[in-house]
Amino acid sequence: MNDTFLKACRGEAVPYTPVWIMRQAGRYLKQYQKIRKKVDFLTLCKTPELAAEVTIQPIDALGVDAAILFSDILIPVEAMGMKLKFLEKKGPVLTPPVRNETALKKLSVPQPETDMGFVMETIKILRKELATRVPLIGFSGAPFTTATYMIEGGTSKNFLHTKRMIFESPALYASLMSKVTTTVLEYLKAQIKAGAQAVQLFDTWAGIFSPLDYREYVFPYVREVIKSLKSWQAAENIRVPVIYFVGSCSGLLEEMRTCGADVIGIDWRINIDDAIKRLDSDLSVQGNLDPCALFMPKEKIQYRVKDILKRASSARGHIFNLGHGVLPETSAENVASMVEMVHSFSR
Amino acid sequence: MNDTFLKACRGEAVPYTPVWIMRQAGRYLKQYQKIRKKVDFLTLCKTPELAAEVTIQPIDALGVDAAILFSDILIPVEAMGMKLKFLEKKGPVLTPPVRNETALKKLSVPQPETDMGFVMETIKILRKELATRVPLIGFSGAPFTTATYMIEGGTSKNFLHTKRMIFESPALYASLMSKVTTTVLEYLKAQIKAGAQAVQLFDTWAGIFSPLDYREYVFPYVREVIKSLKSWQAAENIRVPVIYFVGSCSGLLEEMRTCGADVIGIDWRINIDDAIKRLDSDLSVQGNLDPCALFMPKEKIQYRVKDILKRASSARGHIFNLGHGVLPETSAENVASMVEMVHSFSR
Repeated sequence: MNDTFLKACRGEAVPYTPVWIMRQAGRYLKQYQKIRKKVDFLTLCKTPELAAEVTIQPIDALGVDAAILFSDILIPVEAMGMKLKFLEKKGPVLTPPVRNETALKKLSVPQPETDMGFVMETIKILRKELATRVPLIGFSGAPFTTATYMIEGGTSKNFLHTKRMIFESPALYASLMSKVTTTVLEYLKAQIKAGAQAVQLFDTWAGIFSPLDYREYVFPYVREVIKSLKSWQAAENIRVPVIYFVGSCSGLLEEMRTCGADVIGIDWRINIDDAIKRLDSDLSVQGNLDPCALFMPKEKIQYRVKDILKRASSARGHIFNLGHGVLPETSAENVASMVEMVHSFSR
Repeated sequence: MNDTFLKACRGEAVPYTPVWIMRQAGRYLKQYQKIRKKVDFLTLCKTPELAAEVTIQPIDALGVDAAILFSDILIPVEAMGMKLKFLEKKGPVLTPPVRNETALKKLSVPQPETDMGFVMETIKILRKELATRVPLIGFSGAPFTTATYMIEGGTSKNFLHTKRMIFESPALYASLMSKVTTTVLEYLKAQIKAGAQAVQLFDTWAGIFSPLDYREYVFPYVREVIKSLKSWQAAENIRVPVIYFVGSCSGLLEEMRTCGADVIGIDWRINIDDAIKRLDSDLSVQGNLDPCALFMPKEKIQYRVKDILKRASSARGHIFNLGHGVLPETSAENVASMVEMVHSFSR
């Protein structure tokens, strides 16, 4: 198996910089669109054979060094008891939004193996099919980012409901976060037991906070998940790297550095060498090309890939990635070229 | 006249920290809503007596140390020749979006005094009415942020059209920016001639870029505006401070510091003392309370106000402000208390 990704996570020597791409199984791939014509998004997530198939598509098409489970960060939220729909232009809609004790009480901490069995099933299929190829990354929304969807009832522009709950009803927020934190922890344990060889926690929306609020209302919960996951792993004698990704992390790096993860995912709004300096600790980094840079001509993409590789060379380990998910409008050919550039330039 | 604001802009000693609030003339004030019931938003912008009235409302209601012209950053875009509408839930809509040479050619650089005469008229009224009270701040969108609205045809989520133009058609982008830059420069000169005592350039959306792209595609244009404005001022023997505000600036501070402004506006996603350190130059700063913090109980607002005042004490000058515009749902009473806290804690 190609283990460059796992080695880079652990800070071990690698022959070249490994690369994978957030949302690499997605709409920019014709192969993916073909399957999506037959089934809707949620059905795809819940049908292990199909979810495994789209997970593998980018491995064949792009030559990336890791696969990431095809799923959605709202799967555990549905399992907690909320109604989940995906509307064509609007994105996910969760009902009813959790903004009071009554709504919160209706939600439970799910049993991953029974309530989200299709996810573990997908992982098992994938481990068999990828056995001699690349490692499989599992994932979950981090507790805060998961909670924003529950409070807002979907995505949001300024996260006003979330911040109002935090600032006006901190006790309600704490109870919600307690349920979400346990859910996320148990979900990741189940994924690892099923065979995930690394896990990524997505804290896509944590960058809406000042460092002070991040420290108080976001960080303690994600640190709890990672620390508990690590103690459990130690007891079970497992060693699965944890990646923690925060969107718009540039103001928060000093706060994030003690989260306990092996790898910090960096978005594109900061130079990765500055991020490494500010993290100031023995961690690997992942990132950080602007997804929109893939619309540039190839020479310009080359320049950027080289720049990031050079800047990231001071980290103990570097996994190349975009700074956010690949956009549906992106040319798959450019994505494949980028992967090739990362491999050839870093050799 | 209360000149604490102007003194802080220039880094001179002040008896207390001056404060004003982005979007302080707005929907969170009942007085403002009363006038908006009678006229729509654009009519309000274009009726000097009414625009002056709402500009003064927060001076009476809150006791802030500066007034900011009531207007909209899209006024010069309409004057360039685009059709502008404000839809109730959607926000501004500009037609047709500027995405090719043909659309660009239809736009001209406006003559501020004739094409946006109502703005200069409003400023003249305000200078008379505010004469013994507080200074008046004029403003414009910075060139890049103004251009995003023109390219996207309104607001946007990921600014894909803008980034595609920049990355796929850099020459088209450069021609657009040349027109916008001249427009912004002439508009600010006209505001200063009419009586604006400081001006703020809003680069609300510049934070969508990596430092590399900010340096290449955003910064040169805003620096050109500020440098030209400063040379013109020197020739005319005028001395009007320039404030440069970037939303989500935390990854870009090192790039921004040589922009030529007197004051850098900081959003809330970074500790203001870290921002001051990273700016590493002789500039005043403005900011940076999270607008959502105004939903907290007063003791908690107090704690944050004190924290920001303390952190900002290392700057040559500090103007207290929110890190973004005040939200319509905010309690006007909390805003007024915050202003009072800034004054009393900093004395």
